[in-house]
Amino acid sequence: MEKINHAGRIARLQEKMAATGLAAVALNAGPSLYHLSGLHFHLMERPVVLLIGPAKGPLLILPELEMAKLADTTLLTPFPYGENPADWPAVFAGALDWLALSGGRVAVEPRQMRLLEYNLLRSAGSGLEFVDGSELIAALRASKDGAEVAAIRRAVQIAEEALTATLPLVKIGVSEQDIAAELHLQLLRNGSESNLPFAPIVSAGPNAANPHARPSARRLVAGDLLVIDWGASHNGYASDLTRTFAVGRVDAEAVAIHQAVLAANRAGRAAGGPGVACAAVDGAARQAIEAAGYGSFFTHRTGHGLGLECHEDPYIRADNQQRLAPGMVYTVEPGIYLAGRNGVRIEDDVLVTADGTETLSKLARGLVMVG
Amino acid sequence: MEKINHAGRIARLQEKMAATGLAAVALNAGPSLYHLSGLHFHLMERPVVLLIGPAKGPLLILPELEMAKLADTTLLTPFPYGENPADWPAVFAGALDWLALSGGRVAVEPRQMRLLEYNLLRSAGSGLEFVDGSELIAALRASKDGAEVAAIRRAVQIAEEALTATLPLVKIGVSEQDIAAELHLQLLRNGSESNLPFAPIVSAGPNAANPHARPSARRLVAGDLLVIDWGASHNGYASDLTRTFAVGRVDAEAVAIHQAVLAANRAGRAAGGPGVACAAVDGAARQAIEAAGYGSFFTHRTGHGLGLECHEDPYIRADNQQRLAPGMVYTVEPGIYLAGRNGVRIEDDVLVTADGTETLSKLARGLVMVG
Repeated sequence: MEKINHAGRIARLQEKMAATGLAAVALNAGPSLYHLSGLHFHLMERPVVLLIGPAKGPLLILPELEMAKLADTTLLTPFPYGENPADWPAVFAGALDWLALSGGRVAVEPRQMRLLEYNLLRSAGSGLEFVDGSELIAALRASKDGAEVAAIRRAVQIAEEALTATLPLVKIGVSEQDIAAELHLQLLRNGSESNLPFAPIVSAGPNAANPHARPSARRLVAGDLLVIDWGASHNGYASDLTRTFAVGRVDAEAVAIHQAVLAANRAGRAAGGPGVACAAVDGAARQAIEAAGYGSFFTHRTGHGLGLECHEDPYIRADNQQRLAPGMVYTVEPGIYLAGRNGVRIEDDVLVTADGTETLSKLARGLVMVG
Repeated sequence: MEKINHAGRIARLQEKMAATGLAAVALNAGPSLYHLSGLHFHLMERPVVLLIGPAKGPLLILPELEMAKLADTTLLTPFPYGENPADWPAVFAGALDWLALSGGRVAVEPRQMRLLEYNLLRSAGSGLEFVDGSELIAALRASKDGAEVAAIRRAVQIAEEALTATLPLVKIGVSEQDIAAELHLQLLRNGSESNLPFAPIVSAGPNAANPHARPSARRLVAGDLLVIDWGASHNGYASDLTRTFAVGRVDAEAVAIHQAVLAANRAGRAAGGPGVACAAVDGAARQAIEAAGYGSFFTHRTGHGLGLECHEDPYIRADNQQRLAPGMVYTVEPGIYLAGRNGVRIEDDVLVTADGTETLSKLARGLVMVG
């Protein structure tokens, strides 16, 4: 595998900070901190903050008992604190002093930053103005390098192997929960990291009409459409796939909505490429479903970026004029949801290449009968 | 299982709000929102906020595509929004209007609340003052009711069965990662929910000297102490256990530190009970390790509360004068960490009863040789 160059990632961020006049970037535990440092932290009851100035840093504020995580890196200057929360403000103040950070704009990620860390930063540096750095940081993460694409490719492969190993269990009379548990086992057995990007969704018949259903005790019956939405994790990177199956014989409506979603999936995958607006990809998928007469039953966006987070930039949405660029990876996942009856979703993971796209997921998409 | 009375939980919170003059409580996706509503949401890129006034509410701000989660409850007034983030501020403003919330103190949880939701709330209600409601909300969750204790008991049982099923694999030459993967499989197979409270820690020899180690490719060798720290999840509730094993024959120092930690675990478990300060439990465990001459190698607090979160109130820490009360559940997990050599931790889950404590975990704690 390619070696990950964290120092290079930080240098690129610092260039952008200098160009935009930012005094600092402050990140708490989460995927962006991992992207820049290679360090995993949970959102625990103790604060963890990575602070980077345009010409100095990064430094890391962390609990003393996590110091061992820094054994293999010289990238970060540690600011550890002990067990007593009363000591936190002084450590934050010391960190800001070290960075000579006494004023200016500090970029944070509002979707990740908690009041716990934010209040400590704000109290330590009264002259600071906190601004939304989401786009700046997302842009650094959106175009994947070779090591990142390889990790997503492997996460797709693990997910596909896991579903293939699960399908023999899928029969009339088996519950959604049983299928989800087996799929989870198979994801781990086939090599996924233990933190799955999300718990598998297995929903059939009326439950399939809820795009975010949790697996229930309901057993499969003939006539159900069965939606399975699952993913694996490799080196921290996610895959995210969905396939829809026919349980026994299904009615003509079920066949029709599956065909419409399949056409939308194909159109959405075909629409991408460097320079194409996210909105155009959404539009291509949406138009296929509208043409089949089910436009009002496609109730969500067409997809989302995929990487260290299962949902990240670029969002494939009607109102997003952001342009795709080589290295971006995103899902195409149109669906039709008929309340109380059935639902369909077909989701693939797509990589933007130098001159088009590559669909990373290969599993057959046609309506396969199970049970 | 006892039926969970969410309306009763909300009524108790509203009583406390009235008594303390709070204008509202605002919770984003997470365990407290689940405790009060029974609804699971992830911390996604879209805001989700539960708002409760002292005499009105709760209301829930959520994405339209999550509305199906509210099908089984009449407890909440929904304020849904569509796919366009530009619509969020108006929905937040409408929610505050509905609650007639135009001033006063709003309690939030700084360890859970993100700037995403906080900034939307703050912009929607310019006259509001946001205050730390962590203790108020933690107090509601700290003393578990019958259904909650039953769930933790079951999570402990699942964890114990999973470790027992894993031990036959544990041998000289097997890697930490292989043991962790098998334990994870066994947790699921024995009935844990797929969102484990945390990924199992399996660390041996020098790695066992890091209390938060991640399982590595290092293979067990004779003389290692092997620390396994793992837990299961049932109905959203966590268990959290640690046992330490001898890999083949270990040296006298390894035996001595295991004995010291075992004595500390016993003393810590015996010290609890209604009215006892958390600090006294920490002190009892710490004293046993100090008496054995290893005081400076017990580098963390003795334990933490256990419930919907794996780490929650009450914290068993030298500086915490909070008194234990019936229904509280917490860990007792003393450890000794000798950098570069070996480590030990022995962790049990303890319930405060009407007149003492009950240790929920039963697995043998003595130094068992494996491999």
